[in-house]
Amino acid sequence: MKISALGEFGLIRNIQRLFPRTSPSTLIGIGDDAAALRLSSAAVLLATTDMLLEGVHFDLSYTDFYSLGWKSAAVNLSDIAAMGGIPRFCLTSLGIHPRITVEQIAEFYRGFRALARSHKAVLVGGDTCRSRNGLVISVTVLGETKKAVMRTRSGARPGDRVFVTGSLGDSAAGLEILKTGGKGQGARVRGREEKKLALKHLRPIPRVAEGRAIALSGCASAMIDISDGLSSDLGHVCEQSRVGAEIHADKVPLSRDLRRAAKKLKKTSLEYALSGGEDYELLFTVPPAQIKKLPPLKIPVTEIGMIVRERGLSLIDGAGKRTLLKPRGYEHFRPINGRAKRRI
Amino acid sequence: MKISALGEFGLIRNIQRLFPRTSPSTLIGIGDDAAALRLSSAAVLLATTDMLLEGVHFDLSYTDFYSLGWKSAAVNLSDIAAMGGIPRFCLTSLGIHPRITVEQIAEFYRGFRALARSHKAVLVGGDTCRSRNGLVISVTVLGETKKAVMRTRSGARPGDRVFVTGSLGDSAAGLEILKTGGKGQGARVRGREEKKLALKHLRPIPRVAEGRAIALSGCASAMIDISDGLSSDLGHVCEQSRVGAEIHADKVPLSRDLRRAAKKLKKTSLEYALSGGEDYELLFTVPPAQIKKLPPLKIPVTEIGMIVRERGLSLIDGAGKRTLLKPRGYEHFRPINGRAKRRI
Repeated sequence: MKISALGEFGLIRNIQRLFPRTSPSTLIGIGDDAAALRLSSAAVLLATTDMLLEGVHFDLSYTDFYSLGWKSAAVNLSDIAAMGGIPRFCLTSLGIHPRITVEQIAEFYRGFRALARSHKAVLVGGDTCRSRNGLVISVTVLGETKKAVMRTRSGARPGDRVFVTGSLGDSAAGLEILKTGGKGQGARVRGREEKKLALKHLRPIPRVAEGRAIALSGCASAMIDISDGLSSDLGHVCEQSRVGAEIHADKVPLSRDLRRAAKKLKKTSLEYALSGGEDYELLFTVPPAQIKKLPPLKIPVTEIGMIVRERGLSLIDGAGKRTLLKPRGYEHFRPINGRAKRRI
Repeated sequence: MKISALGEFGLIRNIQRLFPRTSPSTLIGIGDDAAALRLSSAAVLLATTDMLLEGVHFDLSYTDFYSLGWKSAAVNLSDIAAMGGIPRFCLTSLGIHPRITVEQIAEFYRGFRALARSHKAVLVGGDTCRSRNGLVISVTVLGETKKAVMRTRSGARPGDRVFVTGSLGDSAAGLEILKTGGKGQGARVRGREEKKLALKHLRPIPRVAEGRAIALSGCASAMIDISDGLSSDLGHVCEQSRVGAEIHADKVPLSRDLRRAAKKLKKTSLEYALSGGEDYELLFTVPPAQIKKLPPLKIPVTEIGMIVRERGLSLIDGAGKRTLLKPRGYEHFRPINGRAKRRI
């Protein structure tokens, strides 16, 4: 069905039906001038927003709308996770090209809802408009935490150990597979590990419970989510903490799926892990005396290196050889240099 | 200067410099995973977001970047005003086409800052990315209020009087003048009243102090800002309040500038006022017994009609003749029917 047949207010009503008001904290949800929300008393409000543009962050030739909705929620939930927060409220703005159908938009919101609901985050508002060029997505997520619990990028100190959750590089390899392998949900992507990697790219899992547990434990001195790539995001922590870091190449967690797929893709797994990005795992730093406080998590946590006084990042290989590690994650506006774009 | 020469993180640093952290409520501002903000205890959080797309909401052939930044703030501040709130924090996301320069983006933010600052609202975060098609803007504004003070669209009751602030239709006439008259800030727009109308379109004034005063006075039963057009926005209030309304044509406030310009544009002033939109004035309803509570405001407030039990809107002319008033403001996705688009 064409969006023009439904109209803007029809579309908003459809979205309202998908997201009935369920939280007692939502005083006013979708459909007024602004949402009106209640936080716990003495809470610190967290606010993050991300824009996803067709042709830049995603390509509808290999992503389906459900995954796109899921991922639009995931990238923002991941930011709340990296602050040690609890996601509470979402706002979604969509600029919709006339070729996109009502059913596709409903699929987008179903994917968005599936992930948001699993974190008890509710959609409370947004904006819908016509776009002349493709699909434009902007999502804002509001969360809460307490000041003493919150973790930022700026607390890392020399001697702190660097940890990451899960494994890295899967998403970037998944994107490459999707680009060469076909369309939507990895449907035409062959091979079990290829499909798993593609799904890691299309429907990343934000580490909300893990970020919260790490923050509550008080063990971490700094935390960030890995969205731009390990080297780039570790670089952000180092820059804001005014320190450097060294990473042990053979400690970077790589999945078996990635190792297998990398051979076929003729790259090393480590390349994907260091500069691929979009893993949405957490990177955090822990002073040695606090390591015993690390909380038990449902996913693996790996120590990959150490914060050092000297600025800059270095990579140490198995033979102890040290090389400079340049932050090489994705950066918008950089003149195209042959590197594959790697968003969605 | 090309954005690519500055890079994404250089651009973010430029924005940070334009918006130094000034509010003690901003625990973490631009540059971490999420902003961390403090609200007054027991506050209700207000959240609103609006997307502005080049070629749909604005055209760079007749708007300058300063005005665009100003307006991007204004449309969101107006939503907070309509809830009776105090704007506190802003997040801006920009998708930037390579043809747009660093200087133009700085101008955008200067315009944004000028209006936001005058309301003590601080920029605390956002996103920047490359766009393949024009300029993409998404702004979120967070505000606060108390539950008892807040006003929504849904409280109007039969017998309530309908009031509007300021005058209506100027912005829509201003857009028409800009489209036919030339470029940026009305520079090539001739005539004093034409320039004033163009400026009403390019740099609307959100009625924040007025919305707050009306809400605090407790006189209003419902409130909305006029963004889609009087007929459309009064329609929203009526729909959500499950009532109807009648408007007296000769009471609708029209500026002298509009009356003069309308003659040249060969339309009636009333047409602009009823369906033009983007006035960002406030429409509110007041029970007769509460009219004495109306607070003194610095701008005119005009009673234009009454809420009635029967659904639907009607327009009563000077001779007492009643006609059906169809909500005819801007609606996205509606098949183009010859009506001018009227955003920015």
